Amino acid sequence: MVKEHVTLAEAWNILKSNVSRELCVETVPVNQSFGRALSSDVIACRNIPHFNASAVDGYAVRSERTAGATAATPVTLMAGYEWVNTGMPVNSEYDSVLMVEDSSMENGELTIIKSLTAGENVRPIGEDVSIGQVAAKKYDIISPALAALFIALGFPDAHVFRLPRTIYIPTGDEIVGASDWTSYEEAPPYGKTAESNSTMITGYFRNWGFPIDCVDTVADDPEKIVEILEEVHGKYDLILIGAGSAKGEKDYTSSILREYGEVFFHWLLMKPARPAMFGRYKNCYVVNLPGFPMSSAAALWSVAYPLLKILHTGSFDEDSALSEAVCSCSEDELPLLIAHSSPAGKAEWVRLKAVELDGKKTVYPLSPGASTMWAIAEADGVSVLPASQIECQKGARIKVYFTRRIEWSKRILFQGSNDPAFERLGSYVRKYGGELVTRSVGSLGGLAALSRGEAHVASCHLFDGESGKYNDSYIEKMRGDNKWKRILLFWREQGIIVREGNPLGINGIEDFTRDDVSIINRQPGAGTRVLLDFMLRERGILPEQVKGYYHQSITHFDAANRVAAGLASATIAIRVAARGRAPDSQLSFIPITVEPYELVIPEKYLDHKGIIALLKALQDSEWRAQVDNMGGYRWENA
Amino acid sequence: MVKEHVTLAEAWNILKSNVSRELCVETVPVNQSFGRALSSDVIACRNIPHFNASAVDGYAVRSERTAGATAATPVTLMAGYEWVNTGMPVNSEYDSVLMVEDSSMENGELTIIKSLTAGENVRPIGEDVSIGQVAAKKYDIISPALAALFIALGFPDAHVFRLPRTIYIPTGDEIVGASDWTSYEEAPPYGKTAESNSTMITGYFRNWGFPIDCVDTVADDPEKIVEILEEVHGKYDLILIGAGSAKGEKDYTSSILREYGEVFFHWLLMKPARPAMFGRYKNCYVVNLPGFPMSSAAALWSVAYPLLKILHTGSFDEDSALSEAVCSCSEDELPLLIAHSSPAGKAEWVRLKAVELDGKKTVYPLSPGASTMWAIAEADGVSVLPASQIECQKGARIKVYFTRRIEWSKRILFQGSNDPAFERLGSYVRKYGGELVTRSVGSLGGLAALSRGEAHVASCHLFDGESGKYNDSYIEKMRGDNKWKRILLFWREQGIIVREGNPLGINGIEDFTRDDVSIINRQPGAGTRVLLDFMLRERGILPEQVKGYYHQSITHFDAANRVAAGLASATIAIRVAARGRAPDSQLSFIPITVEPYELVIPEKYLDHKGIIALLKALQDSEWRAQVDNMGGYRWENA
Repeated sequence: MVKEHVTLAEAWNILKSNVSRELCVETVPVNQSFGRALSSDVIACRNIPHFNASAVDGYAVRSERTAGATAATPVTLMAGYEWVNTGMPVNSEYDSVLMVEDSSMENGELTIIKSLTAGENVRPIGEDVSIGQVAAKKYDIISPALAALFIALGFPDAHVFRLPRTIYIPTGDEIVGASDWTSYEEAPPYGKTAESNSTMITGYFRNWGFPIDCVDTVADDPEKIVEILEEVHGKYDLILIGAGSAKGEKDYTSSILREYGEVFFHWLLMKPARPAMFGRYKNCYVVNLPGFPMSSAAALWSVAYPLLKILHTGSFDEDSALSEAVCSCSEDELPLLIAHSSPAGKAEWVRLKAVELDGKKTVYPLSPGASTMWAIAEADGVSVLPASQIECQKGARIKVYFTRRIEWSKRILFQGSNDPAFERLGSYVRKYGGELVTRSVGSLGGLAALSRGEAHVASCHLFDGESGKYNDSYIEKMRGDNKWKRILLFWREQGIIVREGNPLGINGIEDFTRDDVSIINRQPGAGTRVLLDFMLRERGILPEQVKGYYHQSITHFDAANRVAAGLASATIAIRVAARGRAPDSQLSFIPITVEPYELVIPEKYLDHKGIIALLKALQDSEWRAQVDNMGGYRWENA
Repeated sequence: MVKEHVTLAEAWNILKSNVSRELCVETVPVNQSFGRALSSDVIACRNIPHFNASAVDGYAVRSERTAGATAATPVTLMAGYEWVNTGMPVNSEYDSVLMVEDSSMENGELTIIKSLTAGENVRPIGEDVSIGQVAAKKYDIISPALAALFIALGFPDAHVFRLPRTIYIPTGDEIVGASDWTSYEEAPPYGKTAESNSTMITGYFRNWGFPIDCVDTVADDPEKIVEILEEVHGKYDLILIGAGSAKGEKDYTSSILREYGEVFFHWLLMKPARPAMFGRYKNCYVVNLPGFPMSSAAALWSVAYPLLKILHTGSFDEDSALSEAVCSCSEDELPLLIAHSSPAGKAEWVRLKAVELDGKKTVYPLSPGASTMWAIAEADGVSVLPASQIECQKGARIKVYFTRRIEWSKRILFQGSNDPAFERLGSYVRKYGGELVTRSVGSLGGLAALSRGEAHVASCHLFDGESGKYNDSYIEKMRGDNKWKRILLFWREQGIIVREGNPLGINGIEDFTRDDVSIINRQPGAGTRVLLDFMLRERGILPEQVKGYYHQSITHFDAANRVAAGLASATIAIRVAARGRAPDSQLSFIPITVEPYELVIPEKYLDHKGIIALLKALQDSEWRAQVDNMGGYRWENA
């Protein structure tokens, strides 16, 4: 009986009630057992230490021979003592060790200034571990220290649960294997997509300590899919199938499993990973991971990992399964820096960046697209917003699984105008001991964030038509009583970007009113949009007269890409956005103006480690050379 | 110039100012690059996607042809549309995709009920990553998702920092290599110790992702040590030497390095790991790890790991270095359950167990011995108490680096009388979904802990001489107004444990007053001590008449071990403590009495997951069979 549209809790119950098998046990050498789970208690068969060992450097003696010894009333011995180093045996004729500090030795005469009790400074047999003691328990994970303890106890091998065996089968006519994909000199074939999920999945299995095999991509062909299932099912405990469980024309996995195997659940009330499916093909469990990278990751974390834990040790811990699955290095409950709208009726995986502002740790979500790989790689952590959480207000606290260690005190948040040259600054800020997190919100958005205390640094290039000057009036209005330092970073060339060779003959803003021209604009508050608005006003053109005025993009590159892709005829952007493009998406640039690009930093942050690093990085000649190379920039003092 | 007796902060400064070398870079295939640090920014040379891709399943159309379409005023097309699955290309004649939900199709006629804008439901070229964009920054660690992104961007290889090369050289005449050590059928040779540190160190390097080689143990012979240094220094970046830097007779490493190399610092103001040393032999850095397991671990974490980070990427983060070094999975600041006395003038590494009591997370230190391997393996986490922290009161908050994930809601703390049969219960409690943490504090200590709210379960076997009954009067006194459930678990045989064959002819408590007899007693509050006190009183014997009365041990096994080791003639303990011993430390048991061993559980914990599991485990026939096998136990209803 297939359960459809299940919550994660329901999915986990289905896993628990449908997966049952004899757990397999194997014996591995201790020095290859790190990270493995013990399949039985380990009872000590030797004592540690296995002899009475001295705990100090000094003289082994019989304690009764030291009776009454003090500095004032020393006792001397001519015989009946023996030097021992720390860890050396205390022979049976002795019962204690005199610390060298409590003795003096001259011509074989030992002078004792402290009286000892039996056993003093002796680590007796079995002090650390005694024969019969439980040295480690079934299900314990073998840590470096536990492995060392096993060696000390004389065990060459450890009895552990056999690791579950998994195979990943990517499917899809449009999917090209990694080695072919990376071999293309120029752009890869039109309409094709890289098979990169197996790389990601392999990485997670490596982190989890589970083995995985991957096969080449299988075409969207039911016969081929059944063929590979038939071939592999006997050799593995778990088959992961990539894609094919959604509602597309070529999604066959679900119907195949329903026909030849068994489906326990299909469709997860989760975004992304909605088409996730769990079933069985003969004796082998099957999980379907949807094809989009973030969907695949979400299903891997939410379904495949808990299942692997059951296959490995018979159960999984609901409280920590997701944290373990995403390989979290710490957890926290932190407030959102910005509001987030989550879909109703579904749990949502969000990818988060983290920053500390004025002593308050906070997180904000990155792009929510299931197809976006960059946001998974860029995220500092993830969160699963429960289905009940629909509108998350700014400040709402969410549980964060951090997937990298955050150096909070070094990290600064930039909000402001998107600029590709500034974007290159990241590793230079690191070089000087800081960490730069950038968020493109446009010039006005950046200044507003700064005024709300939600950024350490902003940038702007805002033209004021009334004064004819850049930035001054905007900054004055936004900063209130705060002191803000302004740094004129560079001048940038703005212009009209059109397809290569300017096929529509667009020569100026005037042409934006033409019927055959549609533009892609930037978001409200972007300096580039403010510039366009000014130029339109200057020419008496109303926004409504410009086709595409309300279509927007939040970066120069993205706007340029939409022109290159034929989704718009023109956009306003900086020169670099038209450069360095693939042969089939070349663009032309028609210069309009040169504008100042300013950084704005509240003075209270000038001694922040991250800001200090940023200011140093701005002077780095290597970065400056890179910017010169990009073109379209002029330094403030040039 | 050697700095001696340095703090950890000073040691780190010495590392930073003395380690400088050109960082090495290498190129590795992306699918082998997980966990490696990028040696340069990665700038995208391809767009993702590299074509306009559909974001939905539906029909690619020109947006202007959908103008005005609504459910009430549908638009129909006979041509000029094309079905696309999610992710498939939207060809250049189209600029948008109509979702299948917003359409119907009959005999080739497409009915459209929604008006589209240009670009709608299209993921344009470069939406995820654009050519020229910084896809990843220098020093980024290659995560599974980043590796996948590199593949999608067409990079077969990644440029990463070469990993530092390390060799570990254990030294010591008394140290026996792991393979010899684990091959002994019976007890290993007298006075020898296992070389188990290389196992632990290898485990940490594996977790850190750094390679390490280990050589066989080198004897305490300056020539041999110089020989091996000479042999390996050219092939490695870092040499770790095990032991030999303390003040013992055979500690040569420090003097060798001072003579043939350079010592930057020696003696760390840290407990343990005091003899840690850092220097250089020719071009190779050298860290000396003291020999005791916990000393070795502390020096490894505190000195070797930060040094490796410098060798790898040029720097390390002081805020997170220790957390990374111990492979912490989470951090917290938690109160101490018990007071802890830390040495003055030194930082102290403590090993901690963690438990949540009445919603309050708390930790307590395990045995502080540098030689204790068990406590490292048993710990849930570690902490470094700063030198300034000398007397830590109960409730004092300390920073904890957790080294395993804690299932707080399942975990219960047992405090009470030590019992080897009860100790075996741990994995059975796990079997039923709980986690048992045991702390031996004696019967009275357990009841007192229970009354202070510092345990979930206690145990006792306390004889009341006045009433002639066990436990009743003690429990009545301690429980106050609280309701405690009592479970008579089993009856245990108590007796006198003497060396095999009873060479001193000890036949009863009366013999404890003999001049040639000395005992090892249990700690105040232990039920066994209460029993001894009663028997002495009954016979009119004063404690002062019993040699060794004030020498104490906290477990039955430890007390028996001291007898076996010749440190005492007799002790009172349960039968199992005399059993299953190595051939050279056999004991005899002289029965005295049979006593009831009771568990006591506050009623408010009866619905705690861990207590529920404990109660189930007590009925487990496999555990009961184990106990029957141990001998000296009788079930309550038997």
